[in-house]
Amino acid sequence: MHNLRSQLINNNKAKILLIVLDGVGGIPNNTKTELESAKTPNLDKLAIKSETGCHTPIIHGLTPGSGSAHLSLFGYDPMEFDIGRGVLEALGLDLEIKNTDLAIRGNFATIKKNGAKLIVTDRRAGRIDTKTNERLIKKLSTQIKKIGNYQILFKSGIDHRFVVKIISPNKIDDSNCLIQDTDPQSEGLQPLSAKNLNTKSKALSKIIIKLISSIEVVLKDENKANYALFRGYSTFPGIPTFQDLYGIKAASITTYPMYKGISRLVGMSPLKVDANSIDSQVSVLIKNIDKYDFFYLHIKKTDSYGEDGNFKEKVKVIEKFDKLLPKIKKLNFDVLAITGDHSTPSKMKGHSWHPVPVIIESNNSFKGISKRFTEKECLKGNMGIFEGKYLLNLIFAHGQMLNKFGA
Amino acid sequence: MHNLRSQLINNNKAKILLIVLDGVGGIPNNTKTELESAKTPNLDKLAIKSETGCHTPIIHGLTPGSGSAHLSLFGYDPMEFDIGRGVLEALGLDLEIKNTDLAIRGNFATIKKNGAKLIVTDRRAGRIDTKTNERLIKKLSTQIKKIGNYQILFKSGIDHRFVVKIISPNKIDDSNCLIQDTDPQSEGLQPLSAKNLNTKSKALSKIIIKLISSIEVVLKDENKANYALFRGYSTFPGIPTFQDLYGIKAASITTYPMYKGISRLVGMSPLKVDANSIDSQVSVLIKNIDKYDFFYLHIKKTDSYGEDGNFKEKVKVIEKFDKLLPKIKKLNFDVLAITGDHSTPSKMKGHSWHPVPVIIESNNSFKGISKRFTEKECLKGNMGIFEGKYLLNLIFAHGQMLNKFGA
Repeated sequence: MHNLRSQLINNNKAKILLIVLDGVGGIPNNTKTELESAKTPNLDKLAIKSETGCHTPIIHGLTPGSGSAHLSLFGYDPMEFDIGRGVLEALGLDLEIKNTDLAIRGNFATIKKNGAKLIVTDRRAGRIDTKTNERLIKKLSTQIKKIGNYQILFKSGIDHRFVVKIISPNKIDDSNCLIQDTDPQSEGLQPLSAKNLNTKSKALSKIIIKLISSIEVVLKDENKANYALFRGYSTFPGIPTFQDLYGIKAASITTYPMYKGISRLVGMSPLKVDANSIDSQVSVLIKNIDKYDFFYLHIKKTDSYGEDGNFKEKVKVIEKFDKLLPKIKKLNFDVLAITGDHSTPSKMKGHSWHPVPVIIESNNSFKGISKRFTEKECLKGNMGIFEGKYLLNLIFAHGQMLNKFGA
Repeated sequence: MHNLRSQLINNNKAKILLIVLDGVGGIPNNTKTELESAKTPNLDKLAIKSETGCHTPIIHGLTPGSGSAHLSLFGYDPMEFDIGRGVLEALGLDLEIKNTDLAIRGNFATIKKNGAKLIVTDRRAGRIDTKTNERLIKKLSTQIKKIGNYQILFKSGIDHRFVVKIISPNKIDDSNCLIQDTDPQSEGLQPLSAKNLNTKSKALSKIIIKLISSIEVVLKDENKANYALFRGYSTFPGIPTFQDLYGIKAASITTYPMYKGISRLVGMSPLKVDANSIDSQVSVLIKNIDKYDFFYLHIKKTDSYGEDGNFKEKVKVIEKFDKLLPKIKKLNFDVLAITGDHSTPSKMKGHSWHPVPVIIESNNSFKGISKRFTEKECLKGNMGIFEGKYLLNLIFAHGQMLNKFGA
């Protein structure tokens, strides 16, 4: 898909803004969804002037993670590209991942010695708090900096979770880290060996086995967190960038590290946002308007409140965004697209597979069908229900940036 | 797709008419599209009795050329088959293309000698008029008839454009004409060499290089058009025919050479139409009604006026067609399908990616949803929005010509 699009791209440089209200789609809580309940006079006005439809992030019935949902919105087939769990976790903690890096998800855990055997007695080290976690990571970072030629970096996550980044002296990819997870998945069992599962992964397997021993030594006097379990070994996914594929300069305006990280993977420049608010994000957009062709603005809180099952607060975030829309409209983008990466119905307290409304406003919009930016109204639209990976085709088409397909 | 369909075809011989109003789809100019503005009482009556939907010619957001859009309507995956530019141009000039033929797009150009070097000073020879073009083609045709064993044919196009057809003594395909375009794409540069880009294209490359020298000699005393630039080398696309795939006899009723050519590529018999009018086309249909199973009737002017940005005249063509519909209805086709190959919104003055309305009337239609043959009304229909390559499935299905899929 992205290669075909790359072949068809022309020299038109339309100014594009893609706004992603994370998890904005919902299902009726009683009779209405969050979008239907929200008072959104500005979005309503925009919807009437826009081409409308809904996207299903992956395919019918599949609920996406944030990584795959965003790859899809950015025009990559999420079945083809895979951001590994370790990389996604690392991006979420604001670690940059390059093509020499291996990212691993770590858990602090408790082990007991049973003769020569190690037995995992708590896979989460009693769910230690984040503060303790930070203390431990500091200790590890001070005492373990290198294993052989490989540089080692630790970063705290929430509770018992952390990430290890191993920087190899050479380029590596996922074929170099087919290594067994060490988490035995049940308590009372021995940790598994980080053995290599193909020959190309032997070098990294050795490093990881040594790293685990070193960690054990550093943590040996800890009460709960005296061990670490590893899984989700993954490397830079090698995604061709917007610049390479389409020759356009793209920037991202996000407040959460993970989305900044994903945007960086596809070649967007993450712009600095001072405060975690939509106002600040819009100010950054206004300040940088002349510097880029394509902006991706990510609003997180719709998803967060959806995950919490907080219908009311999710509605308020949508209304807050609606109030800022006129400021954005004044910037006169050639193409303005608004959607979510997936649905997060408050009623379900989590991501879902339900189609997500999309509106695209440009001079070339088939307008006048949908009266609001809601699930039901956008379902009537002439984009129909389409797989998310096609959204970028439509956005570029509205910007008249694609040549005809075929003679 | 076409192979699967071919496997499922049975012996029912439904009488089918597919009417293609070229570029009929639009976007609202102000509040209405061309189809919405047109007074179409007969189409309206038909729409209510028909199964309705919209097709997206290729995939969401891709704007098709005429060739790929028609391949799709004729049931071929446009991603799989590709009609080369040279072949399409040749078909457009009413040249027949067989599996021994190479078609090339030519431009008359102006060159200047700079020592031993040739410099292209005008890539379009000052956009000479078509009459001059015809004089030059006559001159070339008289003096260049063969290069080695290869027969050479020239045909005038509009302004500075022409087509060369090289007839090889043997069958050839696109792997035999991977040859560099000679157009340097900018003035002030030397023409590029027609060198072969793979070894299988060496023979044709040699012929083309000799042909270019011969043309230079014939044109040497011309003031402006003293050279020819070549591009778009392509061969017969090798599409399996309707007869081979489905065992049906198909005919085309078109007024423009290109569509006649495309229909011929898929094995339809082009019927002679005396005058360039829809009336004449309908008369030809009536006259030949007993001779074929499947008719493709192509109406061009909806697209032409769309390309011109002439909303009013596009509306008039639709209304003109509507007036003739009762005559067509009297022929009692088992399956009557009406659609466009793509949208050509007058507002955009060109092809677009917007979904195109489709109606299919048969005894097996799910009727009563859409009240008119318009974009918005057809969007409501039970065919939904589907890729154009599936249209022929639906048409055959309505004719009960396909066996069940799977046990």
